[in-house]
Amino acid sequence: MRMIDIITKKRDGGILSEKEIQFFIKGYVDGVIPDYQVSALLMAIIFKGMNKEETAILTREMMLSGDVIDLSGIEGIKVDKHSTGGVGDKTSLVLGPLVASFGVKVAKMSGRGLGHTGGTIDKLESIPGTQTSIAKQAFIDQVNHVGCAIIGQTGSIVPADKKLYSLRDVTGTVESIPLIAASIMSKKLAAGSNTILLDVKFGSGAFMKTLDDARLLAKTMVEIGSHLGRDTRAILTDMDQPLGLAVGNSLEVIEAIHTLHGHGPSDFVELCTQAAAIMLEQAHVVKHSQDALPLIDAKIKTGEAFNVFKAMIKAQGGDTRVLDNPDLFAKSSHVIEIRSEKAGFVKHINSLEIGVGAMKLGAGRQTKEDVIDMSSGVILKKKVGDEVKVGDLLCVAYTNKKEAEYREVLIQLHDAFELSATKIKVAPIIHDYIR
Amino acid sequence: MRMIDIITKKRDGGILSEKEIQFFIKGYVDGVIPDYQVSALLMAIIFKGMNKEETAILTREMMLSGDVIDLSGIEGIKVDKHSTGGVGDKTSLVLGPLVASFGVKVAKMSGRGLGHTGGTIDKLESIPGTQTSIAKQAFIDQVNHVGCAIIGQTGSIVPADKKLYSLRDVTGTVESIPLIAASIMSKKLAAGSNTILLDVKFGSGAFMKTLDDARLLAKTMVEIGSHLGRDTRAILTDMDQPLGLAVGNSLEVIEAIHTLHGHGPSDFVELCTQAAAIMLEQAHVVKHSQDALPLIDAKIKTGEAFNVFKAMIKAQGGDTRVLDNPDLFAKSSHVIEIRSEKAGFVKHINSLEIGVGAMKLGAGRQTKEDVIDMSSGVILKKKVGDEVKVGDLLCVAYTNKKEAEYREVLIQLHDAFELSATKIKVAPIIHDYIR
Repeated sequence: MRMIDIITKKRDGGILSEKEIQFFIKGYVDGVIPDYQVSALLMAIIFKGMNKEETAILTREMMLSGDVIDLSGIEGIKVDKHSTGGVGDKTSLVLGPLVASFGVKVAKMSGRGLGHTGGTIDKLESIPGTQTSIAKQAFIDQVNHVGCAIIGQTGSIVPADKKLYSLRDVTGTVESIPLIAASIMSKKLAAGSNTILLDVKFGSGAFMKTLDDARLLAKTMVEIGSHLGRDTRAILTDMDQPLGLAVGNSLEVIEAIHTLHGHGPSDFVELCTQAAAIMLEQAHVVKHSQDALPLIDAKIKTGEAFNVFKAMIKAQGGDTRVLDNPDLFAKSSHVIEIRSEKAGFVKHINSLEIGVGAMKLGAGRQTKEDVIDMSSGVILKKKVGDEVKVGDLLCVAYTNKKEAEYREVLIQLHDAFELSATKIKVAPIIHDYIR
Repeated sequence: MRMIDIITKKRDGGILSEKEIQFFIKGYVDGVIPDYQVSALLMAIIFKGMNKEETAILTREMMLSGDVIDLSGIEGIKVDKHSTGGVGDKTSLVLGPLVASFGVKVAKMSGRGLGHTGGTIDKLESIPGTQTSIAKQAFIDQVNHVGCAIIGQTGSIVPADKKLYSLRDVTGTVESIPLIAASIMSKKLAAGSNTILLDVKFGSGAFMKTLDDARLLAKTMVEIGSHLGRDTRAILTDMDQPLGLAVGNSLEVIEAIHTLHGHGPSDFVELCTQAAAIMLEQAHVVKHSQDALPLIDAKIKTGEAFNVFKAMIKAQGGDTRVLDNPDLFAKSSHVIEIRSEKAGFVKHINSLEIGVGAMKLGAGRQTKEDVIDMSSGVILKKKVGDEVKVGDLLCVAYTNKKEAEYREVLIQLHDAFELSATKIKVAPIIHDYIR
């Protein structure tokens, strides 16, 4: 078998066989097939696509390129969720403990942030002492004991994706639904849980700009999961404004704590509640997800969900005093109020601009080497639908940078709020549910 | 400027600017832009193409990536021709001297053969002593003095094409009309002549399989040449059988000698005569190419054309005794007659099979390192349209290989002749003329 024949077959619209996809992935990971042949194939896939079967085989072969986590040491159904990445997305911090408070097991691997989207691992590490790099047996013990663990991805998971993603990033071959789907799903499948709930975001701050693209990606991923024998479902959620109010690492942890206490912002609460309900259905705790809603309310009111969160942080070495008293989190030296120069109703908050702004304030990385300032970020004071008068507070910026460094960011944050002269109808955050 | 932006622009159907094409070619030749980005761009060009202007700019930038030969030291109009490569194509050996016998200057660079197509340089070197690697001033002096020189391409001509072609060859990005046209034309333009006649071949033994593809390639190249200020024209010729009767290096030189004496096979004579007539029009020797036909006949009858060939070989150090007496050429140890097992009329002679067969007999290279056996090859005894009876001679194989090595080739050569039960109408060799 020759890589050149695989390239020309796809270029001419052919369907790659199982053996051809195996040959390509194994050869690439082994360093036998060079980057320049793979990038040509990826560009051919951009134009000619891959059918369901090819995409599922690609995903499986990528998964098999590295370690596949064996979670059989954890009793019961293991549930997982994945978000395609948004601004202010601290969902895992709430969902993990909340679902685990029902006795369902959550053994989760998360990523770090890069660019305008934050990563769950960075957020967790804003809690002093929290370890996110945990040996396999300790990870399994923690899930058995506490019900929930969130750790960083191990280096040996899906090496094919690491190599492919680096190449796609510099060859204009990122924007392909089968390639995106295989990248996400290979990692989720390798992480070993029985069920997967995908939160596919769309809008200005998301990777998928339109609902249609997000739906196609979601359907493709659900098909892959089903094809490979996992209960996989997806929700399509709006990223036309940041999720919740807080953007920035410890700021988001504090919002997660409030939410676990029943005091979260309404859009974030809605997302966490609906997602948890679906995960509980996937775990056979309830027959229909909607039956779970009153049970979820109870787990929050009784403090059981928060207690799982605390137990998880304690098990991972974190200082739980900041969870009981969020005022103990380190504070930024500068707290700057950003007030509106216009009046109207908030029509749209550009998530990309807020995310990039928060990154520039210190909350994110522009390159992999950057160090995050855990206390910096943005707290929104207005959300889509809110009325704004001239001089009203739009958001508050938190930073330890010098004024010369953050001055322009304040304008960027202000201008991220798009106002309308007329009232705005607020859509529900979940636009579709695919199973 | 970033290569990734150039890739995505072309991927999305955009038109690359002059600066973008310059950046890409210069960066690639300088080693700043890696193969994997270039192969992705090439695959995007396969799908999205290039318009006339982009193709002309690409050609010019490729040409400027290396030496551009200055032929101003040669008086008068310098004419050049190029064939896209066929089986039995010894046209340059006849056309160069023939046109030069009119006082027109031919300063030609040719290539070596690889695979099933032979190269003019290899054929020339079958004449003992002939040098094809000549210093620039000696080359110019020879053209001024003799009227004609045919030498190998210098190493410093169009390095961009060498790099790009090697990459295209292994990434499934050969089959793009703008890329093929730019590759050919950049070399022809760098070679410095004032006029270019392109012989674009189509059919089983040619790179272009159909007349339509050949016409599109020819038009694209003529447009490039015109855009860059050179009188460029093209003829479309049939490769549905080998050209002439001889395939193999010294065998083809002998056929060229016969043709220069007025005894060539009719299809080859027709091609040489028509092509020479067009080149004489391009050189302003005649107003209309058809006016040149009787003059060409005269140059052959008087022996003037042959004398230029002899003078050229002498100037390049070759032994002209073999030209006067072709029996002096080295002979193959095995001469095998291949006779027909069927009867009918020759409908088609698969040029690819004949070319590959001749290569296996020793006449060509499978890899760049192979050494050619100058005396081996095939002489056709039947051409398209000829009647064949069972036992009639189809062709004769010449080789120095052992019987075990060539036995299968004999079958391949036999089967290359496709017979029809009914008479076949023979089409003229030139199917179209584009200017």
